[in-house]
Amino acid sequence: MNPVFKQLKQELDRVQSLFMALTLFDWDSATQAPKESIGLTSKAIGILSNEYYNALINDKVKRLLVQLEGETDLDDYEKAVLKEVKKDYEEMELIPADEYQQYSELVSNSKSIWEKAKKNHDFEQFAPTLEEVIGFKKKFADYTIKAKGGFSSRYDKLLNDYEEGFTTKQLDEFFSRLKEAIVPLVQMVVEKKDKIQKEYATRLYPIKEQEEFNIFLTNYLGFDFNRGVLAQSAHPFTTNLHNKDVRITTAYIEDLMESAIFSTIHEIGHGLYEMGVDDTLTFSPVGGGTSMGMHESQSRLFENNIGRSRAFWEPLFPVLKEKFKEQLEDVSLDTFLIGINKAEPSLIRIEADELTYSLHIMVRYEIEKQFMNEDMTMDQIKELWNQKYEEYLGICPTNDAEGILQDVHWSQGSIGYFPSYAIGTAVAAQIYAHLQTVMPLEQYLREGKLEEITKYLHEHIHRFGKTKNMQEILKDMTGEQFNPEYYIKYLQEKYTKLYENL
Amino acid sequence: MNPVFKQLKQELDRVQSLFMALTLFDWDSATQAPKESIGLTSKAIGILSNEYYNALINDKVKRLLVQLEGETDLDDYEKAVLKEVKKDYEEMELIPADEYQQYSELVSNSKSIWEKAKKNHDFEQFAPTLEEVIGFKKKFADYTIKAKGGFSSRYDKLLNDYEEGFTTKQLDEFFSRLKEAIVPLVQMVVEKKDKIQKEYATRLYPIKEQEEFNIFLTNYLGFDFNRGVLAQSAHPFTTNLHNKDVRITTAYIEDLMESAIFSTIHEIGHGLYEMGVDDTLTFSPVGGGTSMGMHESQSRLFENNIGRSRAFWEPLFPVLKEKFKEQLEDVSLDTFLIGINKAEPSLIRIEADELTYSLHIMVRYEIEKQFMNEDMTMDQIKELWNQKYEEYLGICPTNDAEGILQDVHWSQGSIGYFPSYAIGTAVAAQIYAHLQTVMPLEQYLREGKLEEITKYLHEHIHRFGKTKNMQEILKDMTGEQFNPEYYIKYLQEKYTKLYENL
Repeated sequence: MNPVFKQLKQELDRVQSLFMALTLFDWDSATQAPKESIGLTSKAIGILSNEYYNALINDKVKRLLVQLEGETDLDDYEKAVLKEVKKDYEEMELIPADEYQQYSELVSNSKSIWEKAKKNHDFEQFAPTLEEVIGFKKKFADYTIKAKGGFSSRYDKLLNDYEEGFTTKQLDEFFSRLKEAIVPLVQMVVEKKDKIQKEYATRLYPIKEQEEFNIFLTNYLGFDFNRGVLAQSAHPFTTNLHNKDVRITTAYIEDLMESAIFSTIHEIGHGLYEMGVDDTLTFSPVGGGTSMGMHESQSRLFENNIGRSRAFWEPLFPVLKEKFKEQLEDVSLDTFLIGINKAEPSLIRIEADELTYSLHIMVRYEIEKQFMNEDMTMDQIKELWNQKYEEYLGICPTNDAEGILQDVHWSQGSIGYFPSYAIGTAVAAQIYAHLQTVMPLEQYLREGKLEEITKYLHEHIHRFGKTKNMQEILKDMTGEQFNPEYYIKYLQEKYTKLYENL
Repeated sequence: MNPVFKQLKQELDRVQSLFMALTLFDWDSATQAPKESIGLTSKAIGILSNEYYNALINDKVKRLLVQLEGETDLDDYEKAVLKEVKKDYEEMELIPADEYQQYSELVSNSKSIWEKAKKNHDFEQFAPTLEEVIGFKKKFADYTIKAKGGFSSRYDKLLNDYEEGFTTKQLDEFFSRLKEAIVPLVQMVVEKKDKIQKEYATRLYPIKEQEEFNIFLTNYLGFDFNRGVLAQSAHPFTTNLHNKDVRITTAYIEDLMESAIFSTIHEIGHGLYEMGVDDTLTFSPVGGGTSMGMHESQSRLFENNIGRSRAFWEPLFPVLKEKFKEQLEDVSLDTFLIGINKAEPSLIRIEADELTYSLHIMVRYEIEKQFMNEDMTMDQIKELWNQKYEEYLGICPTNDAEGILQDVHWSQGSIGYFPSYAIGTAVAAQIYAHLQTVMPLEQYLREGKLEEITKYLHEHIHRFGKTKNMQEILKDMTGEQFNPEYYIKYLQEKYTKLYENL
């Protein structure tokens, strides 16, 4: 190891350890911290965020970064780390330490405020906090734009945080292409919606049995409990301390058994990505998934392309029926498959079907873009939300919990993140198409050989961490860069076939 | 607030936040972290311990401490913090930072090594780690002794860490007085042991129902789930982030229902102490229980003096019977009370009855004293363990898991801690005797008014945190300092009464 790099690595290990502590606090507060702990714990989180900031942004690290510019014998790993750290450094350096601490305390507190407001169906309770969060995000984006330029808007800067190189211009095109292709399909499914019987899905499925099935499923999909945890939280998510400590959550709804199943599969996709990062990269700035879009491609691949396919359920459905003998007595595999693939405009993104999902993202994309680039009051944002749902999905929230308060993201400062869901979904279809050309995919699914698929993904995607970006990974694996046409073709074929005989 | 103190407080908040992170890692690794996470996570813990060390031990803090020496307008809280921090500072300052980090990584790793060795019944697997831990503890004690003097042996220094002012000399007297009083009682219970029918206790009590009862019990005893968590771990313990985040664990054994119940009650005693610390003190160096002995007095008071009394079980036993209808069908309250109070020499400390418990502590006390003050091989320590059990309890471990590997403490560097269990048990009896003079204690228990007891303990013990030491607390509350005669009287009366009619 280059000796200067070794010095830098020591500093980065401090940064990484503090980040790990913050990650653990995050996990803990979402899964088990007692309600009243939040005030004092947030204070500590604010202070630790400040420590994290100071561990990265200081003269020593700056000097080492400058020194490393001149080093010629860096290996690929060292170069990749250097590139990543420089990017973070240059950005964080622009934010004054006290503002960073204020912001960290704010987002650590805001989640519980959001939760409470959602519980009370009352956006008013959350609006002042959201306004503060947006204020910080605007200010921080402006710091970068002012210092470095290169972005045509604040929102472009945020997009770049989650998906390097993607711009509003590209996304506008992507979403307009999607809209064009999806709208006729949505018309078709709306017309035929009464042809699908799905009453079975809302019977009572006791939580305990759901838990047992989801644990079985998690094992079945190859999530290694020696290196991971499955817990419960209001809003399912994945996090990790390193590649040997990967944690996912799910959420059980008694009269909506599908909900936990597909949440679990989704998070497992994320989890397998992090578990697959190479041992030499974990616990370093290049030790996580390369981008949000790539991450979502893994979760959506498992949740939808694999998780809603006939081949996947052929061996699994009998297990599910065995667990819920009474509830599924009169339900055949065919009925179940049409049920889990039924498309219908709805209000809740995380419950949305594969077809209308991207419309939910479009709503958020357009709202975020507007409130980041322009001045909007919180009332205007809420109004816009309801208008867009009416316009794109033909339905309007009857309360804030099923409307603007449904997602945790904005409370956490994750603005510009939502488009990654759509990008990832498109990438998932591209990867699925590729997998069909390199392995007997459906046969593996029918035989429950999930490990063959994961092995391939580990080999061609996961192990690289952030040492390759999404476009490089796609190019090296499939011979082609990001191409949304696979996604469009997938949706057209799938929904035409599924609905043609109804 | 004194302006210099305010500056110090800011530094202490950093120290406290890092300590909170370390506490959370500790909790997490004992309750849910995946098995293989330990290696990389220990690395982070080592680094964070170093950050913690550096946040406390630095020129700025030293300068502020010196400056505060000259300040004359400090209030009681400020004085108490200053005293506590100076003590910590002066001690930690003597340990070189790299040694502190090595030690922290060692004890963070050692728990899982201990667990594995215990599982395999193989002390050999743990011996090298224990040797390292003891080595560090000796070295650290020597630093203090060399620099500050005032201790007649290394072990005296360690005793002082857990119970300020207590010495080997006092403890030798205390234990010899105890032995003298307990031995005839033990003889009596051994002679009569076959008169007690306790077969019901080892029937099968499904974990799920045990969990439900223990959650009920936790609520019943006033542990506030809005400010606390109850989880499971191999070895029950209590920890806290602050007074609004107090966490206890228990451990369920299917054919030993009592085990979890009394573990839970024990930890609740600790938990109520931390929940009762005043809001103005928490998140500060004086924001925890004042000493290990005082802490144990609270856990033992609830576990034994209260938790094994007739008045306590009168309203609760019907609830337990309702939960375990079949298992307890033929068991009366009388049978149950004799059962949970049955004394009998045994091998496992945490399963030991009230009477023989202190003998288990004596074994550990004498061994610790010897290996800290003298040179001993790991083989000699193990041999001594088995000899002492033979000598004091008349039985010898058949394997290491029920012998020298049974306790987690040494793996965590907690040497000199065990005597606190005996001190605390004696203090519990002293407090119990006092409570009987200031409130209708048994009536409250029979009426399930546990909150009246806790309110009194909050008022006279808990709220002070570390601003008063154990002797001060006892003196102010009862008019008397530590006096083991209450304990001896309690045991003599209780066991004579319990066994006289058998």
